[in-house]
Amino acid sequence: MIYADVINHPEQFDFTIPTLGRCALDSPVKGRDFVDDDEQIVFASQVKNILKLQQSGKPFPAFQKAGPRARIFHDPAWSHAAILTCGGLCPGLNNVIKGVVNVLWHDYGVKTIFGAKFGYQGLVARYGHSPLHLTPELVDEIHEEGGTILASSRGNQKPEEMVDTLERMNINLLFCIGGDGTLRGARDIAEEAARRNRAISVIGIPKTIDNDLSFIEKSFGFETSVHASFEIISSAHNEAEGAYNGIGIVKLMGRDSGFIAASATLANSVVDFCLVPEVEFTMAGERGLLAALERKLEKFHHAVIVAAEGAGQNLFNSAEVKKDASGNILKNDIGLFLKDEINAWAKKQGIEVAVKYLDPSYHIRSVAAISPDAIFCYLLAENAVHAAMAGKTNMVIGNWNNYFTHVPISLATRQRRKIDLDGAMWKGVLSATRQEDWFAGNPDRK
Amino acid sequence: MIYADVINHPEQFDFTIPTLGRCALDSPVKGRDFVDDDEQIVFASQVKNILKLQQSGKPFPAFQKAGPRARIFHDPAWSHAAILTCGGLCPGLNNVIKGVVNVLWHDYGVKTIFGAKFGYQGLVARYGHSPLHLTPELVDEIHEEGGTILASSRGNQKPEEMVDTLERMNINLLFCIGGDGTLRGARDIAEEAARRNRAISVIGIPKTIDNDLSFIEKSFGFETSVHASFEIISSAHNEAEGAYNGIGIVKLMGRDSGFIAASATLANSVVDFCLVPEVEFTMAGERGLLAALERKLEKFHHAVIVAAEGAGQNLFNSAEVKKDASGNILKNDIGLFLKDEINAWAKKQGIEVAVKYLDPSYHIRSVAAISPDAIFCYLLAENAVHAAMAGKTNMVIGNWNNYFTHVPISLATRQRRKIDLDGAMWKGVLSATRQEDWFAGNPDRK
Amino acid sequence: MIYADVINHPEQFDFTIPTLGRCALDSPVKGRDFVDDDEQIVFASQVKNILKLQQSGKPFPAFQKAGPRARIFHDPAWSHAAILTCGGLCPGLNNVIKGVVNVLWHDYGVKTIFGAKFGYQGLVARYGHSPLHLTPELVDEIHEEGGTILASSRGNQKPEEMVDTLERMNINLLFCIGGDGTLRGARDIAEEAARRNRAISVIGIPKTIDNDLSFIEKSFGFETSVHASFEIISSAHNEAEGAYNGIGIVKLMGRDSGFIAASATLANSVVDFCLVPEVEFTMAGERGLLAALERKLEKFHHAVIVAAEGAGQNLFNSAEVKKDASGNILKNDIGLFLKDEINAWAKKQGIEVAVKYLDPSYHIRSVAAISPDAIFCYLLAENAVHAAMAGKTNMVIGNWNNYFTHVPISLATRQRRKIDLDGAMWKGVLSATRQEDWFAGNPDRK
Amino acid sequence: MIYADVINHPEQFDFTIPTLGRCALDSPVKGRDFVDDDEQIVFASQVKNILKLQQSGKPFPAFQKAGPRARIFHDPAWSHAAILTCGGLCPGLNNVIKGVVNVLWHDYGVKTIFGAKFGYQGLVARYGHSPLHLTPELVDEIHEEGGTILASSRGNQKPEEMVDTLERMNINLLFCIGGDGTLRGARDIAEEAARRNRAISVIGIPKTIDNDLSFIEKSFGFETSVHASFEIISSAHNEAEGAYNGIGIVKLMGRDSGFIAASATLANSVVDFCLVPEVEFTMAGERGLLAALERKLEKFHHAVIVAAEGAGQNLFNSAEVKKDASGNILKNDIGLFLKDEINAWAKKQGIEVAVKYLDPSYHIRSVAAISPDAIFCYLLAENAVHAAMAGKTNMVIGNWNNYFTHVPISLATRQRRKIDLDGAMWKGVLSATRQEDWFAGNPDRK
Repeated sequence: MIYADVINHPEQFDFTIPTLGRCALDSPVKGRDFVDDDEQIVFASQVKNILKLQQSGKPFPAFQKAGPRARIFHDPAWSHAAILTCGGLCPGLNNVIKGVVNVLWHDYGVKTIFGAKFGYQGLVARYGHSPLHLTPELVDEIHEEGGTILASSRGNQKPEEMVDTLERMNINLLFCIGGDGTLRGARDIAEEAARRNRAISVIGIPKTIDNDLSFIEKSFGFETSVHASFEIISSAHNEAEGAYNGIGIVKLMGRDSGFIAASATLANSVVDFCLVPEVEFTMAGERGLLAALERKLEKFHHAVIVAAEGAGQNLFNSAEVKKDASGNILKNDIGLFLKDEINAWAKKQGIEVAVKYLDPSYHIRSVAAISPDAIFCYLLAENAVHAAMAGKTNMVIGNWNNYFTHVPISLATRQRRKIDLDGAMWKGVLSATRQEDWFAGNPDRK
Repeated sequence: MIYADVINHPEQFDFTIPTLGRCALDSPVKGRDFVDDDEQIVFASQVKNILKLQQSGKPFPAFQKAGPRARIFHDPAWSHAAILTCGGLCPGLNNVIKGVVNVLWHDYGVKTIFGAKFGYQGLVARYGHSPLHLTPELVDEIHEEGGTILASSRGNQKPEEMVDTLERMNINLLFCIGGDGTLRGARDIAEEAARRNRAISVIGIPKTIDNDLSFIEKSFGFETSVHASFEIISSAHNEAEGAYNGIGIVKLMGRDSGFIAASATLANSVVDFCLVPEVEFTMAGERGLLAALERKLEKFHHAVIVAAEGAGQNLFNSAEVKKDASGNILKNDIGLFLKDEINAWAKKQGIEVAVKYLDPSYHIRSVAAISPDAIFCYLLAENAVHAAMAGKTNMVIGNWNNYFTHVPISLATRQRRKIDLDGAMWKGVLSATRQEDWFAGNPDRK
Repeated sequence: MIYADVINHPEQFDFTIPTLGRCALDSPVKGRDFVDDDEQIVFASQVKNILKLQQSGKPFPAFQKAGPRARIFHDPAWSHAAILTCGGLCPGLNNVIKGVVNVLWHDYGVKTIFGAKFGYQGLVARYGHSPLHLTPELVDEIHEEGGTILASSRGNQKPEEMVDTLERMNINLLFCIGGDGTLRGARDIAEEAARRNRAISVIGIPKTIDNDLSFIEKSFGFETSVHASFEIISSAHNEAEGAYNGIGIVKLMGRDSGFIAASATLANSVVDFCLVPEVEFTMAGERGLLAALERKLEKFHHAVIVAAEGAGQNLFNSAEVKKDASGNILKNDIGLFLKDEINAWAKKQGIEVAVKYLDPSYHIRSVAAISPDAIFCYLLAENAVHAAMAGKTNMVIGNWNNYFTHVPISLATRQRRKIDLDGAMWKGVLSATRQEDWFAGNPDRK
Repeated sequence: MIYADVINHPEQFDFTIPTLGRCALDSPVKGRDFVDDDEQIVFASQVKNILKLQQSGKPFPAFQKAGPRARIFHDPAWSHAAILTCGGLCPGLNNVIKGVVNVLWHDYGVKTIFGAKFGYQGLVARYGHSPLHLTPELVDEIHEEGGTILASSRGNQKPEEMVDTLERMNINLLFCIGGDGTLRGARDIAEEAARRNRAISVIGIPKTIDNDLSFIEKSFGFETSVHASFEIISSAHNEAEGAYNGIGIVKLMGRDSGFIAASATLANSVVDFCLVPEVEFTMAGERGLLAALERKLEKFHHAVIVAAEGAGQNLFNSAEVKKDASGNILKNDIGLFLKDEINAWAKKQGIEVAVKYLDPSYHIRSVAAISPDAIFCYLLAENAVHAAMAGKTNMVIGNWNNYFTHVPISLATRQRRKIDLDGAMWKGVLSATRQEDWFAGNPDRK
């Protein structure tokens, strides 16, 4: 676990936030408690860890606290801002865009705000994507819609070309909303700008629907995607109960971590088996999924399985031999794999089953943000603008201990977060599903 | 068109409702306008057709009007009822069950009501499915949930075995909720009971999420499934707009008719191409989908395609030669087919596209009924009970000209309804999508 | 009942649709079955009524069928259209606007389409409301929102002033979306235009969230408002069950008719008492609401009451004496009245109750249209445009026997429709609530 | 601010958790990281505060960390548990009940679980409310519904009577879900049990829809209520935009703090004025609400006002003189007050306005929990059971720095939390609404 590493080796983790220079201007932000750069949020929440760190004599790991600074670096009157969205859709993108525009415009008086189209492509002249000119009027109702009004693209572009564009357009405030690839791209832009000695604040707003960034407790859009999964699980449950030995299978997002699958299972606790990348399982054998399923069906005659995209990837090598006609796409699709394997097994065993497979795919990332996410997005945006105006760069806005924080990009992208299998959430999943009992062949549930 | 046939050859259509015998008992239903058996709802709504029929001297096609009869056949005190649900899930099943139970219990005083489990299997002893004993308390809140509390199964069972069960359980009122296969099963039961001289009313409540039964203007659950499709289309639209040349593809139910796809397109009119079984199309060629799509992308850089399951089935024969490794399931899946073909074409043409495929599959049939369907289900159930108590049999409850009607099973299952391509709905789809213009290569839309 | 009058005195009802003149131009609408003016939809659906009418020798009541005409009156190239929305909000207003714009633009090529702001005020120069110029792009996503992009106002304006504006702006196609006041205003405009010999088609699209127009089976927005009421009733039910002798009261729209209250009760059948203007009731006495409520509480310890706005208005005279300090608004508010009366009664009787009053008020009319309404709105709009282009005027688009029809304004506004207390819907409400049993003091329900 | 007091006077705050005795039994919980009693979550998150506290030599404020203990106090085989819900409804009550039952049953093997009906009344014999016997089957789907299956009541009962009942029923684990009144009741029970030397663990699960408990960062149900408010605000916005000088007023819960109003404003940022108890305002005068509203209407011709229940209470004293006929209820109703005052003012000024007042009242607390709340509830329940089994008592489960914590009841009920007017959320509200600018008469927004 990376967090244990911070406690044990804090010297390996740099929490310092780069700045473009001295803040020489008074902030136009009114009536706020300003935050000083030396206000810090403690990384460790447990008293024993705090004591251990203090006794070690090593640097004490803590995040710079986000918020408005009394003095700022960029002159609002001369500032040009740009916003872009990269990678896959995520609920809340429009909320963040709206927030950035509103705070720049109203709190700081920055009125030249470009919306670069199609992610980093919008910063490369040869693509020919004209930027939008963003105003509070234009963004007034965009929070009611999913998607992103700026559109998106995948992949990074050459930092040199992008900084050329920033220079040509006189942009000194750049907000990049995206996942860790995007954030690395933002870092490259920040470094290229530094190389050219251009005072451009590059601020990332971390986006990962899978909620798997390190050093950031919650990423926007995640709760909405879990909520959108709730009703898909209800449908699978209705299908499972609607047939003799009905089996509803739901595949949810989560390539490397199963946060969505686990959270959705806990939210709509009618799930019998929750399969995540963090926990390997087998199909065959006494402790395999098929045996567990058989026990379940014998007692209840229906079952609901929720699988994260990345679950059971270990099964594909062994399956490859007998499934070679299935083609590449099918081979890694755990949902279709489960459906086919269960059907084949049931046929062989002479068990009547009715397998119903639901793959909401893009739906759960394309919906509008639910309220908790909407609020979170606005506050992320607000703090991103404060950081930018104060001349911070090469950083993202994070959230830690319910404070908004400044996190160096290098820290945020260092390693993906995984479900803590000994933590409360996963234990909640196990207590809600009882799946370990069914795998173990010992179903105590009447 | 089958409806034109009725006008021209009414003698070929028998609207007569079989009855078990003379209604010798006063109805316990209070304070209602009772309906006489000779009240009829005219089949033809257009004056010219009515005149034509009257002048022909042939039998005048009209439905017996549904509703409570002043005198009834079955003695409530001695009646035993059974309800079952067959085939795929459909929004509103629980609403119908609740309605049948409430009206039997409260309006007629029938208090022995069995819920047979797993469709017709529940009427076959060797399956061993115990029936539920249904009461108003038990069904009080089931209308809030999708699915069916009775569960379902596919396929019919031997009428002899089923009537054995009905005899053994003394059931004289049988309500079968299901599609045309189920209704044919109900007809077989009614005929077997007649053969044995058993006075069993067999009443069908027609269920087809595709809304494609003849002689029945609306089937329950259809509007809910359209409504559930609305937000999937919004997601596809967000995905399409969220990427350069983004293409959102949504597959919706509709094996033989495209009512759901067409209605959902009209409801959420952001769709660019609506593909239904009733209209053939080609992929290649100047008037093919790919050319139309290319024109659309050139102008707008995004497109949304909605395809009914049964659309484009003509394309698979020609495609078979080059797609033989894909297996049977893939071969007929128009959604995956479109996704693969469009990706292959774009790659070949060097066009950057981002294809996002959404298949809500079982989700749109597993949700709870929206209010218009909920009301419709209750009224269907109410009229089904009235018909049963009056000794009608071998019939279904239909809806025509906004009246509830009695429809002989033979009529209801005679032929599937298709979209009228010259009718208002399809023309609405064409005006909302402008797809014919894009197919024709003549996009007048700026 | 007005409908019985039509059967008995058809000569008193004029179904004739006025036209501006001869249709001299070929329709640009492509590939449609055109409808002839003499195609008619029969008013009577019951065979016995049809025969009676035919034997009477009186004029046969029937609606002109809506749809595109092969030949049209207005030259699209020279046509200027205007659309306006009047009166209270209703779900689907934006859908109708979108439909009118799309069909005018795409099907007929009319590209000058004004959106008059704030209802009829938008046709009166001195208000100074600039019209919107409507295009398919502008209206592309408005169907996703409730409300109306054109805004609205109450009350009519002088026809002379409005026709002045129409003349000055060269408008020959006017679409008025509103209730019966609005439609009477449209009639006045049509008559004033006729007086001036101006060929202006004035087409009404009838809007009444209460669904109480005569000669029109369904009005748009009604189903959505019922659906929005569903969850409010669920909340009232949760509140009622959540306390000892919990009583949830929901007030719903319906000044003169109780269609929303009755339909919502049938849709979410957890209601115990559904109070509508069509059925008088008393508070006190053996058969009064309080006694019925007491019986219900004794057995179940909770109850849900749904009241239409106009229910129980007979009660206010007697109550006036002891409630004179309450002011005018309170006096007629059946919701607050019930809450106060029940609380006072319970206090007097020494019964512990927990009354929770929910008044969703404007909420249920401000939401976006659900799919069935959305589709209905688009088709209403389509047929309104066809009627206008064919030179019809002084009429509204109706719906009868599932056909869209032309209805003279004088007919549509003749009398408000009420719930048929002997019809299926109200009987469904009685069977779902059992309220008559509780009023009667004879609760057979365990 | 109470939190500042903790930093400055930590000695005045006792974080100690009472226990019933030594934990002598091994926990049956499988495969978990057990938590030791001396694991603590730091109260202060800011490094400077931590240092200050450490240097003060005073007791270091920190919460005991929640979670399963390796050794437990109560013997599961002999344990009897009871759960009850008190006070007003709140989304998530059923989720907490389900969680407590599942974890007791499956993780610890406690199979005697009573659901006391109607809050503390259920612990007083003379009310005669029979308890439910709760099992995992019974609670399996209750999380899908709002309300509480145990029903509720307001007010406390005599601790002596309640402990009599607990003794008679041999209950050693008591879970009280409720607000601060309820928690004080729980404290009284714990103390009475201690007086009698009965080893009863009394664990509170704090419920406050207003999210205003101290020492607990988030209370369940709050996010759902904000989310349910979102669409009411959209309706108010549609109403406001739908009329000339349309004014939509929404009253939301929040007697003493405006968290719901502020959060809902930030979530659906179409609000123009957000009025909360924490900020006084006047109606009249250059900086009053009416003047601000007038400026807003002059520019935009519509406005949306969201008011927390407790906002503007200072206005009622002055209003009392001229409003004495309105009665007690009306006098303190800020929503009706605003509606009346604005209408009176507009009439006097000759300004045409259309005021629409929406009071969702009980609706937003009666809906089912959205997913983030559902998950939170399950984890609260899980940790409550762990605490109870380990013999903790007189405490509630809290949440701090994203850890679940043990909080003494005395601490949790010490003082209500208010919005921090210098914090990020309120500043977000100000930047989203610009209301201070409009109050100040200086609307810079074009």
